[in-house]
Amino acid sequence: MSKNTAVSVSVIKRLPRYYRFLGELKKSGTVRISSGELSRRMGLTASQIRQDLNCFGGFGQQGYGYNVEQLYKEIGKILGVNNNIKAILIGAGNLGKAIATHMSFEQRGFNLIGIFDKNEALAGQLVRNIPIRHISGMYNFCRDNSPAVAVLCIPSENAKEIIDELIPLGIKGFWNFSHYDIAANYPGVAVENVHLSDSLMMLSYRINNI
Amino acid sequence: MSKNTAVSVSVIKRLPRYYRFLGELKKSGTVRISSGELSRRMGLTASQIRQDLNCFGGFGQQGYGYNVEQLYKEIGKILGVNNNIKAILIGAGNLGKAIATHMSFEQRGFNLIGIFDKNEALAGQLVRNIPIRHISGMYNFCRDNSPAVAVLCIPSENAKEIIDELIPLGIKGFWNFSHYDIAANYPGVAVENVHLSDSLMMLSYRINNI
Repeated sequence: MSKNTAVSVSVIKRLPRYYRFLGELKKSGTVRISSGELSRRMGLTASQIRQDLNCFGGFGQQGYGYNVEQLYKEIGKILGVNNNIKAILIGAGNLGKAIATHMSFEQRGFNLIGIFDKNEALAGQLVRNIPIRHISGMYNFCRDNSPAVAVLCIPSENAKEIIDELIPLGIKGFWNFSHYDIAANYPGVAVENVHLSDSLMMLSYRINNI
Repeated sequence: MSKNTAVSVSVIKRLPRYYRFLGELKKSGTVRISSGELSRRMGLTASQIRQDLNCFGGFGQQGYGYNVEQLYKEIGKILGVNNNIKAILIGAGNLGKAIATHMSFEQRGFNLIGIFDKNEALAGQLVRNIPIRHISGMYNFCRDNSPAVAVLCIPSENAKEIIDELIPLGIKGFWNFSHYDIAANYPGVAVENVHLSDSLMMLSYRINNI
């Protein structure tokens, strides 16, 4: 995959949203769409959409608009939805189980191959048809199966120890539901944070300031 | 609560992170901290921190730094963590149950008072000590209890119908885990989106572009 290093982060961050919208259009049978119509639906200006998509080589044709199927595929390729990256999930509490069960990992470029928890009582339980393993087996599992990504659904206080073990084992990316600040402490690792409580506090703020 | 309308959204969006850091400092017994030390820990510049916090009246004292406890309280007040806003959760599937169980609603300004699902088989199950109710009882429940916020853990295709019912019942904010674009369709309502699959795709992109 080519590195789109010249493309700004803010454009990249809009791509999943384009991808979602185009996926819905595709599902509804729409074959092509103008930047004007796409802008109306997405609440962006048409010129911003043209500019965004031009960053990746310009998929549109003057007077025709965008081919929905093709644009969906191309953005998916840029995002890496066909990468099939091996991932493990650490922490099979309520949140971990829900993430494992709920997410379409395969459609987003991942293959969830292992689930670990420090609670021995959970070992053997199936989640998404994957047996929960005790955390003590994580080292051997990673050595044998070479996952590249870890989904962290553990409390912050346990994060450092786990990350220190995972990085030498070849984990190069984290989907981080803990509040531990991975990016600050491990530069060079890919991190995507989901701070649910930050989001909830933002809602509280927004409601007070409608 | 005063409306901080002059404060930019980007400053506001950093407040939950300040709040988290300060909470950890407080827990570890730190009484005061300089903007320099806070900047080192948070990966922001000291001048940005001073600028951010000055927006709300300047909590720091030259040569002393910030009083951790006081700053934590003040930011919490701005975010509304003591608001005790009544909330209901719609959709008690894996994700809905995990959100209901996992989140510290009370500490973030909310009081979860009801959980609803269209699946009759779930009715009566306890989640967080709250009985799941069939969705047909939502109207009466809202009329009687006046929740102001709904947490949506339902598929996008069911969102519009539910939102159309909830807004006339007094719901003025949504914590939205569905992919339905509430903000575009209902301007004037407070919305905070959690797009888990967007986040997962961003991780895929980041790993390919380390």
